[in-house]
Amino acid sequence: MIGRLNHVAIAVPDLEAASAQYRDTLGAQVGAPQDEPDHGVTVVFIELPNTKIELLYPLGENSPIQGFLDKNPAGGIHHICYEVDDILAARDKLSAQGARVLGTGEPKIGAHGKPVLFLHPKDFNGCLVELEQV
Amino acid sequence: MIGRLNHVAIAVPDLEAASAQYRDTLGAQVGAPQDEPDHGVTVVFIELPNTKIELLYPLGENSPIQGFLDKNPAGGIHHICYEVDDILAARDKLSAQGARVLGTGEPKIGAHGKPVLFLHPKDFNGCLVELEQV
Repeated sequence: MIGRLNHVAIAVPDLEAASAQYRDTLGAQVGAPQDEPDHGVTVVFIELPNTKIELLYPLGENSPIQGFLDKNPAGGIHHICYEVDDILAARDKLSAQGARVLGTGEPKIGAHGKPVLFLHPKDFNGCLVELEQV
Repeated sequence: MIGRLNHVAIAVPDLEAASAQYRDTLGAQVGAPQDEPDHGVTVVFIELPNTKIELLYPLGENSPIQGFLDKNPAGGIHHICYEVDDILAARDKLSAQGARVLGTGEPKIGAHGKPVLFLHPKDFNGCLVELEQV
């Protein structure tokens, strides 16, 4: 069911410093910051040859990233995103097997303009898992 | 400097259950458990089309994973591994810029038989970063 690893998302306490580190110290291809007000985050994508790193920084009130950074002031890996062909079929199969889908259970449009869902970390080895339909 | 994302490592409290979930529920290609006594872990590799997930479970006394699981009983993302062409050049550049290399600073032979180093999470947005020479 799952396909490619679309990205690994890292919540960072200083988006400019983290971007500069990936660009200048680690020599990666780093994009410009993009505000995603619907998701309460500013994101920077780092393009690796085979996948992406997504740096996340809180945007606005009630950002879903703020609580994570309060608990992890240095930052940390926030979630991993797997690609699926059919997000509704994936959701239904996972739900039938007891995995909990976060929120309403209906896909939202994610930072890449594609339908996404998040799965409960307790059901996936403590990892917040995003599914993205591609 | 960094190239492909070689793998994402997830520490899991039940290796058999996590393997079965990735194989049966998520439909991924899951390998057989491999004991790595030199590293104090048993690993299962999950082959995605573009990268790997490495499930980690403690092996023997003083496993470096045990403390992580004590703090995160449900499991969690333990580290991410970036490929580099020349691990000594990478280490020297990172050290010159103030990043701390864990252990003696000399590469060890990792689970794939290649030289690896780990970088201090505090210097990389709270993420434990492994570098692997490929």
